[in-house]
Amino acid sequence: MEISIEQVAQLIDGKVDGDGNINVNRLEKIEEATAGSIAFLANPKYTPYLYSTQASAVIVKNDFVAEKEYSTNLIRVEDPYSSFAKLLEAYQQMTAIVKTGVEQPSFQSETSTVGEQVYLGAFSYLGDGAKLGNNVKIYPNTYLGDNVEIGDNTIIYAGVKIYANCKVGANCVIHSGVVIGSDGFGFAPQEDGTYKSIPQTGNVIIEDNVDIGANTTIDCATMGSTIIKSGAKIDNLVQIAHNVEVGKNTAIASQAGLSGSAKIGENCQIGGQAGITGHLTLANRTIIGPQAGVPKTISEEGKVWFGSPIMEHRDFLRMSVTLRNLPNVIQRVKELEKKL
Amino acid sequence: MEISIEQVAQLIDGKVDGDGNINVNRLEKIEEATAGSIAFLANPKYTPYLYSTQASAVIVKNDFVAEKEYSTNLIRVEDPYSSFAKLLEAYQQMTAIVKTGVEQPSFQSETSTVGEQVYLGAFSYLGDGAKLGNNVKIYPNTYLGDNVEIGDNTIIYAGVKIYANCKVGANCVIHSGVVIGSDGFGFAPQEDGTYKSIPQTGNVIIEDNVDIGANTTIDCATMGSTIIKSGAKIDNLVQIAHNVEVGKNTAIASQAGLSGSAKIGENCQIGGQAGITGHLTLANRTIIGPQAGVPKTISEEGKVWFGSPIMEHRDFLRMSVTLRNLPNVIQRVKELEKKL
Amino acid sequence: MEISIEQVAQLIDGKVDGDGNINVNRLEKIEEATAGSIAFLANPKYTPYLYSTQASAVIVKNDFVAEKEYSTNLIRVEDPYSSFAKLLEAYQQMTAIVKTGVEQPSFQSETSTVGEQVYLGAFSYLGDGAKLGNNVKIYPNTYLGDNVEIGDNTIIYAGVKIYANCKVGANCVIHSGVVIGSDGFGFAPQEDGTYKSIPQTGNVIIEDNVDIGANTTIDCATMGSTIIKSGAKIDNLVQIAHNVEVGKNTAIASQAGLSGSAKIGENCQIGGQAGITGHLTLANRTIIGPQAGVPKTISEEGKVWFGSPIMEHRDFLRMSVTLRNLPNVIQRVKELEKKL
Repeated sequence: MEISIEQVAQLIDGKVDGDGNINVNRLEKIEEATAGSIAFLANPKYTPYLYSTQASAVIVKNDFVAEKEYSTNLIRVEDPYSSFAKLLEAYQQMTAIVKTGVEQPSFQSETSTVGEQVYLGAFSYLGDGAKLGNNVKIYPNTYLGDNVEIGDNTIIYAGVKIYANCKVGANCVIHSGVVIGSDGFGFAPQEDGTYKSIPQTGNVIIEDNVDIGANTTIDCATMGSTIIKSGAKIDNLVQIAHNVEVGKNTAIASQAGLSGSAKIGENCQIGGQAGITGHLTLANRTIIGPQAGVPKTISEEGKVWFGSPIMEHRDFLRMSVTLRNLPNVIQRVKELEKKL
Repeated sequence: MEISIEQVAQLIDGKVDGDGNINVNRLEKIEEATAGSIAFLANPKYTPYLYSTQASAVIVKNDFVAEKEYSTNLIRVEDPYSSFAKLLEAYQQMTAIVKTGVEQPSFQSETSTVGEQVYLGAFSYLGDGAKLGNNVKIYPNTYLGDNVEIGDNTIIYAGVKIYANCKVGANCVIHSGVVIGSDGFGFAPQEDGTYKSIPQTGNVIIEDNVDIGANTTIDCATMGSTIIKSGAKIDNLVQIAHNVEVGKNTAIASQAGLSGSAKIGENCQIGGQAGITGHLTLANRTIIGPQAGVPKTISEEGKVWFGSPIMEHRDFLRMSVTLRNLPNVIQRVKELEKKL
Repeated sequence: MEISIEQVAQLIDGKVDGDGNINVNRLEKIEEATAGSIAFLANPKYTPYLYSTQASAVIVKNDFVAEKEYSTNLIRVEDPYSSFAKLLEAYQQMTAIVKTGVEQPSFQSETSTVGEQVYLGAFSYLGDGAKLGNNVKIYPNTYLGDNVEIGDNTIIYAGVKIYANCKVGANCVIHSGVVIGSDGFGFAPQEDGTYKSIPQTGNVIIEDNVDIGANTTIDCATMGSTIIKSGAKIDNLVQIAHNVEVGKNTAIASQAGLSGSAKIGENCQIGGQAGITGHLTLANRTIIGPQAGVPKTISEEGKVWFGSPIMEHRDFLRMSVTLRNLPNVIQRVKELEKKL
């Protein structure tokens, strides 16, 4: 389906700077784009590609000023990334295959219930008392234990495993291989050196609009609930231990780990491979850098922390630079000692 | 089911300090507890909640001395955490749904054998020669390859994958998404820059009383066996490479990684996200901190190590404090140099 | 099956140093080997075992010079590890059980196509338009979404999940629990603090001769393709984000993470638990140490980097040694200040 650059601009409240009559029919990356496509420029790192791109149009920021000649057309908008995302969404909706119906063989307990317009893939399993809302999509090879509840419009991709009694809200996306509700890691050391398991009797509650990436694991609470609040976005291979609480709209990057009973505030960002110790609190809008290690509570809101153990970002940057000079400093101290 | 605080105290060999006649019917966390519940206080961090909790009773240490007024009743015991665990266990046993029988469709090779009181969930797979002991529970969507053996009373949760010839002992708990017996990462570099796979012909042996957390991976040995000894407790998303040996009663926290042929002693503790290099040995009772990196053998038993590369805990703490002052130290060295 | 040491030597172009007439029938590790077995010695760490091994023969390097007496026989070769791998391969081929045929129940869309000599395990799923080449082995509980293509001779182990439109080349090995094609972690922050999903419309392309370890996750591209080039070897629990490109013959160890749009060169080696920031490039033959953190592009080929943030290996070693002395250095600076 072809539409003109002018029509694209109208869809995203943008202004054409160039020829709006040219037709386009697809979205491509600025560094790989070919004639007939629309690209975008949000990260300044990619600015050099603007001057060589073959895209028919590039979405740029309102105040973008070209420093060289270019042969494409511009669509100026307030936020190129969001505008492009909007186009991607329109494109996705046009091309998506919406699955519905029940594929066989699948396993539905007689006491499970299923809403309207549901997709239940082959080899998926609904335990006793499990409840699916309307428009839920359960891809193949998925396991939903007894009494699991899934809210409206939620998508559960292939091979997800959700233990008994856990609840997932509406409009969530749970990617393949995710495990929700496995036992927390709780063992009481005995005098003979062995461990005794602490029974894990709680569940996991995932609120609405939560996304969870592939192969992430979320343990059930020892008592009560491990809670992922609405709007939280969790990447792949993240570990969330028992009784953790993740605040609203908090984003957690891949391979980060949250230990037991950690309480993460709202609108926090946790970097990839970062580790959060148990039984602590992170204030709202805290930002934790990649590979950072957080040993204790952060009470002040909105600060940025790096390193293991963490320090403020500014201190981390200074420390990293000087660390490299350390052998040199020691040499200088030696020389000072000689002189004295 | 309601029982009196006095009856609870008898169950855990405790002494009531307060009114033992009040009835309770559930377990809750001290910071969230409501009237009619029992809570416990083990971690001193949570002491402030004792003075405000709505729990009808709180299990505390024998020698606990209140520093303020409180409105709950106490049950004094030697080890509040263990006592509470005992109650949790009783609670779990009363509420647990024990699965038995074979759900259909499932796949049982004609040469596989199954003990008494087994649960075999839908879409589970038993390969040729696979053997399940008595009282084994295999949840749905689980794959047990040819000749896999599972000991008595072991629970395998949904979506576990165990490759051919691997053996799991008795009384183990294997959580969803665990992979046991995948190929070790062994490749011989060739002259043209490509790699040639080293065949991985061994297996994995999991002894008795082992717990393995969700989505953990344990590779088979190149030859012989990767071995997890009895009583070991392994958390989620842990990587255990080919030919590793994990000692008795060793605990490994989430996202830790053990490289090929590492030999971990008994009763060790390995922190979350720690990394252990291959072909080394850790002495018994070694404790490795979170995010630590262990580059070489540790021969002395019972020591505590932190950092990457590791240093003794005491040195690590001193180093961490001084690291932040590094830019300041360099400044002071500069000034000393000027003065001379 | 027994063969003589002399016959083994002929298989691997080696020379017998000792008695070639003795028969052997299995492969064992030098430190555990018993009479009747063949072992090998490649890593010098294991040399002491040569003098005590019970193996009937040990494969050693051509120029190996014994420093003590030994009671085994030697087979001298150019590269003991490769020679042993060759024997392992022969052993594996003799003992392997090759699966073929379609187990029931399995799910094959009417529009999917399947080559010759294919194995399709029970509870495996082929979506609309999915295509399997010749000699492909799909183990049980595996999900291949719509239009997924798998090249000749590729092995997909149990419980793999491949999203719609992804492509896997020939001669690949994909281990259990791998997820290919899950959504990239892309969310546009909104003014009210929530996030809006960026549609992920691309796919993943895995070229030929790629090995992927258990529970590794590879996200689809936002647009275009996430690409794993031919001969790449990827270990367990690795995270590969959207739009990443992994170069030919690059090896990535367990639990490493590659952020979005990172471009890794050919014949690189990335250590376990290392983290690579997004939107950067690693030059060919770059080596990244375990637990390292790579914040920016590396342009020079063939260098070795350690630490987080990374520094050259030589600098890292010097820095690590001096780091431990830091408190001592500060003390010395204090004393210098007093003297002045």
